Amino acid sequence: MLWPIFSIIVSLLAFCLAAYFYGWVKKLPIADGPLSNVGLLVRNGAFTFIRREYKVLLRFVGVVSVLILLFFPKPIWSGEVKLNILMAVAFILGSVLSGLAGWIGISIATIANTRSATAAQKGLAPSFMAGFRGGAVMGLAVVGTSLMGAALLFIVTENPEIVLAFSFGASSLALFAKAGGGIFTKTADIAADLTGKVELGIPEDDPRNPAVIADNVGDNVGDVAGMGADLFDSNIASIAAAMVLALPLGQTDLIFCFGGIGLLASMLGIIITKVGANGNPGKALNRGTYLTNFIFFVLSLAAVLIFKFEFRLWLATSIGMLAGVIIGFTSELFTSDEGKPVMHVAKACQSGPAFTIISGFAYGLLSTFPPIIGIGGAALAAYKVCEPLGAGYPLLGIAMSAIGMLSVVGMIISNDAYGPIVDNARGMAEMGGLGDEVLRITDELDAAGNTAKAITKGFSIGAAGLTVIALLAAYQEIVQKAIGQIQLFSILDPLVFFGMLTGIAVPAVFSAMLMMGVDRNAERMVKEIHRQFDEIPGLKEGVEGVVPDYNRCIDIATVGAIRELIPAGLMTILVTMAVGFIGGVTAIGGFLAGNITSGLLLALLMSNAGGMWDNAKKYIEAGNFGGKGSDAHKAAVIGDTVGDPFKDTAGPSINTQITVVSLVSSLSAAIFLAVSIF
Amino acid sequence: MLWPIFSIIVSLLAFCLAAYFYGWVKKLPIADGPLSNVGLLVRNGAFTFIRREYKVLLRFVGVVSVLILLFFPKPIWSGEVKLNILMAVAFILGSVLSGLAGWIGISIATIANTRSATAAQKGLAPSFMAGFRGGAVMGLAVVGTSLMGAALLFIVTENPEIVLAFSFGASSLALFAKAGGGIFTKTADIAADLTGKVELGIPEDDPRNPAVIADNVGDNVGDVAGMGADLFDSNIASIAAAMVLALPLGQTDLIFCFGGIGLLASMLGIIITKVGANGNPGKALNRGTYLTNFIFFVLSLAAVLIFKFEFRLWLATSIGMLAGVIIGFTSELFTSDEGKPVMHVAKACQSGPAFTIISGFAYGLLSTFPPIIGIGGAALAAYKVCEPLGAGYPLLGIAMSAIGMLSVVGMIISNDAYGPIVDNARGMAEMGGLGDEVLRITDELDAAGNTAKAITKGFSIGAAGLTVIALLAAYQEIVQKAIGQIQLFSILDPLVFFGMLTGIAVPAVFSAMLMMGVDRNAERMVKEIHRQFDEIPGLKEGVEGVVPDYNRCIDIATVGAIRELIPAGLMTILVTMAVGFIGGVTAIGGFLAGNITSGLLLALLMSNAGGMWDNAKKYIEAGNFGGKGSDAHKAAVIGDTVGDPFKDTAGPSINTQITVVSLVSSLSAAIFLAVSIF
Repeated sequence: MLWPIFSIIVSLLAFCLAAYFYGWVKKLPIADGPLSNVGLLVRNGAFTFIRREYKVLLRFVGVVSVLILLFFPKPIWSGEVKLNILMAVAFILGSVLSGLAGWIGISIATIANTRSATAAQKGLAPSFMAGFRGGAVMGLAVVGTSLMGAALLFIVTENPEIVLAFSFGASSLALFAKAGGGIFTKTADIAADLTGKVELGIPEDDPRNPAVIADNVGDNVGDVAGMGADLFDSNIASIAAAMVLALPLGQTDLIFCFGGIGLLASMLGIIITKVGANGNPGKALNRGTYLTNFIFFVLSLAAVLIFKFEFRLWLATSIGMLAGVIIGFTSELFTSDEGKPVMHVAKACQSGPAFTIISGFAYGLLSTFPPIIGIGGAALAAYKVCEPLGAGYPLLGIAMSAIGMLSVVGMIISNDAYGPIVDNARGMAEMGGLGDEVLRITDELDAAGNTAKAITKGFSIGAAGLTVIALLAAYQEIVQKAIGQIQLFSILDPLVFFGMLTGIAVPAVFSAMLMMGVDRNAERMVKEIHRQFDEIPGLKEGVEGVVPDYNRCIDIATVGAIRELIPAGLMTILVTMAVGFIGGVTAIGGFLAGNITSGLLLALLMSNAGGMWDNAKKYIEAGNFGGKGSDAHKAAVIGDTVGDPFKDTAGPSINTQITVVSLVSSLSAAIFLAVSIF
Repeated sequence: MLWPIFSIIVSLLAFCLAAYFYGWVKKLPIADGPLSNVGLLVRNGAFTFIRREYKVLLRFVGVVSVLILLFFPKPIWSGEVKLNILMAVAFILGSVLSGLAGWIGISIATIANTRSATAAQKGLAPSFMAGFRGGAVMGLAVVGTSLMGAALLFIVTENPEIVLAFSFGASSLALFAKAGGGIFTKTADIAADLTGKVELGIPEDDPRNPAVIADNVGDNVGDVAGMGADLFDSNIASIAAAMVLALPLGQTDLIFCFGGIGLLASMLGIIITKVGANGNPGKALNRGTYLTNFIFFVLSLAAVLIFKFEFRLWLATSIGMLAGVIIGFTSELFTSDEGKPVMHVAKACQSGPAFTIISGFAYGLLSTFPPIIGIGGAALAAYKVCEPLGAGYPLLGIAMSAIGMLSVVGMIISNDAYGPIVDNARGMAEMGGLGDEVLRITDELDAAGNTAKAITKGFSIGAAGLTVIALLAAYQEIVQKAIGQIQLFSILDPLVFFGMLTGIAVPAVFSAMLMMGVDRNAERMVKEIHRQFDEIPGLKEGVEGVVPDYNRCIDIATVGAIRELIPAGLMTILVTMAVGFIGGVTAIGGFLAGNITSGLLLALLMSNAGGMWDNAKKYIEAGNFGGKGSDAHKAAVIGDTVGDPFKDTAGPSINTQITVVSLVSSLSAAIFLAVSIF
């Protein structure tokens, strides 16, 4: 139990560092004027949404935990009550901790945004630090709680299936948080853009726009809380999958060793990351990520040599980490505003919106190739490296490569949360009237967030890919344990094939439901904004002292997001159960493979196409191809609007969707074995 | 050899009927005035393209047949020269016959278009008959040549692998024909729409537009020749796959029996299909399809009972046919202009182009679900129905379900070719100045073509899906024969998984390349049109006697299409070879599964989303949501333009792409077994 305890100690250290940063950020000054009021509006809006969302999710968690208590892993009347109770408790713990991580994230993000805006008055470096350390609080809290939770549960139960239930709790909450936040943020963003930028021609964060506060709230609930829940979930899932595979081989120590070292490396990376007065903040963030990778590489190698862990498992871990770096690089190539694809998309904007869409979509399709090959190659290499160790090890190797890719997750989350914080700071600076120099600085910080996002997004999709492959292996292990013999899922078994076809359709239907949700919700909000413009005298004209009713817009986004997220999440779980009850564990094997592959394809396509449209718009706004206001710009805005639900709602939610499906399958394996038509 | 001979006899009958229709259509009168000249321009343009395309493809066929001669199925120096020669000959025969079918199709289509336009002066029924019988020539020729070719090869060699090579010849030609034609037609269509409808506000087929002839040529080379090659290929592939699986079980007779009966049923269906003076042509076409299904059902049942074939194999065949009907129905539901999705997309147009795209894309994603489940369900049911017959039969059952779905392929092609013929007739009527009543009639016939298209498209994607599953099974059979033991492709085998991930990326990259090709090519043509408008005095204003330089546009479309199709086709084949040389036959198994599943997903998504945008535009043009010229209409036109390469270039080409990959894999199995890294 040495290494689980080591993880717990590192987690506690991470909490201390997070608490220190929290206090540090909170003590920073807020500029006089309307800024603090705007900050309060955003903070209250975000908490209103989260409270309401959590209230709904509480019911979901309640229902599912009762179901787990009654049926999982085996019906309660078949005897083993203790396991059912443990599972239900682990599930609840997972969802509560995931919720907590989101809560902490929002709390710090809505503190750091005003501070970062204010600090920009003193220059780029202080503003950067406020944003980055705010993000770091989130990163450290998320990784600390997930690692500690997994370690504690393992110490108490020594049963990896309990950790799977913990992971299921986290990921089902993440599914809703990601989808709900994604719908909220894009509802507000699209509605604000359409009515403000397009119809009235006023700037992005103009306080006249009734949706502007909702838009800023959206950054927090969508990007901060949703993304945090997502990576919380990937992190636990990779640990859980690895544990299922590692336990029979007596290799669980390694997981906690690497988990702890990864968190340690992230802490060091976070502390080191700084930017000079005239430095490049984007480069600083990426340098931090690569440095963290390097620290993990060295420390983990040292640990393997000193404590005599299996060297080949370390190699597999390093392969995963390397693949993460490569995937990050290529997704940056495709979405960076200096890259060829973005330039081409921007150029296509000159021929009109149809060409904007076609070229962005085509490049999006193309961009799926390198990361998919990267994930496949990493899995293959990790497997082959561990093959000489004997049966069981090759699949554990794949799981370790996922752990390797996620080793720097603390740093990744910090970078990722930095983005919406400085994006918010930019909006705050505009609404708070902090002047052009501050806007220039916050614009630069915001752009850096986008650069970093390309790399972190590459990491998180790659990690999800390897994690679900590991979960698939864990699923096989669980089925094998239950039926007492190895279960091969042959692609020519018609049940496997049937499952596979159903599996590939699920991410498509899931994203369709989310996108339609955004569509419907944005329509409702546009109507409300038009009503306010019509009914509040002086609002459109910008008469001094006339303020829109911001809260109505927040309300619409909140109610709509909650209404739309439930069916999409439930569909995912219900189809999984249906396939299991029809085709049994065999069909589920194919279902998982189909779901993973099509999920990866669609997630990459949507994320990257969305990113390209976004950056093509920015490229034109920087004065190319006619600049702002030109026909090319109008076409680019249309592309960007299409890309919004692609990259911020559907795309990233698919990650979580495939994890949830994998976990539901593993947990329900015993039931499908007992009851199924075929 | 009774049944292969029966097929040949039926094929000969089909040729007679086709020849009769050809003569019948050709004897119909052409209206006086510019019509015959316009018809000649289109006909010459189409043949110019086909001649140039075939010249390039001739080189491809030459190179590949030499490679086959040298290496397939085994290197020529390993002894068995005879098989290599036979394979090369079969390959050449397949590609030549496929090319011939396309040639015949274009020949009759460019005769029937002017006749159908002229006949519309006498009313709807005669015009319909000219279009439909023109299409039937194509349908009968395609099915007759493919069936006769397969039967002859089987009689001579009794080796199903030779039929696979025949199929490979047909499908590799189809790949290029479909992709090339698809790029040509959408290049011209988009360029004509953008410059004519959008910029100048002139009608679709206005003779002032320099791209208008190219646009009409495109209907022929893209929809007629390309689609014919595609279904020619599917039909042979399903026969070839079934033969590989049927030979060890002594069931090859059944394939030729059902093939012959299917063609017979199509002939009867074609003869019966008529429309009254005030009848509904769309319903007439669909009635014809369902009637053909019914005739096949009855005749095949009779044959099974009389000649004592396996009843369960007949059941599997019927399951496939039924699934085809269901898939056709649901895809009609999604794309019909009376359906909810199209209405929703049309409504979204009111909020602007971004919402048009988002909602069409979301519904497109959603629409993939029913057909994918239909294909998966049909395969599962066919397998299970044949399971009691013993080993080998279940997979043959899947192949028979593909044969069942393709049983009415003659009728399907006739309906499908009818569409572009009457579409062309409409354009001819406009350019030939045949008056409003003729335009009304040809518009109605054109709309009927679109309705029929939804169902036939459902059939052809479904059939491709089942066919490639059967080809996957055939691949397994070939590998098993080569290594002497059954090869299970377990999804957790890392080579299978690696192959699967690579496989899912290929259709994405392939469609990206085609879409970019259209994009680039359309840009070139728009430039040329602008040049003509600028440089030819009086052209824009429509001065009497001023004609644009139509041939320059045809030239641009031709050169561009040929230039763009080669890399996409080669990429597909080369990636397959690369995966095979890296991961051997095991990786190829996964590669096929991934390629099939993601290919189906993307093909359905793109075809259906494109269809929805098209019909949403038509719905608005019919006077809803503001009608022509409104903002909603402008948004709908953008959606339609995005949908063009989706539904007419990339979407339908994927069908062929997955077939080609499957065939290359089966034929190269022996080589991958001999040479591979892992």
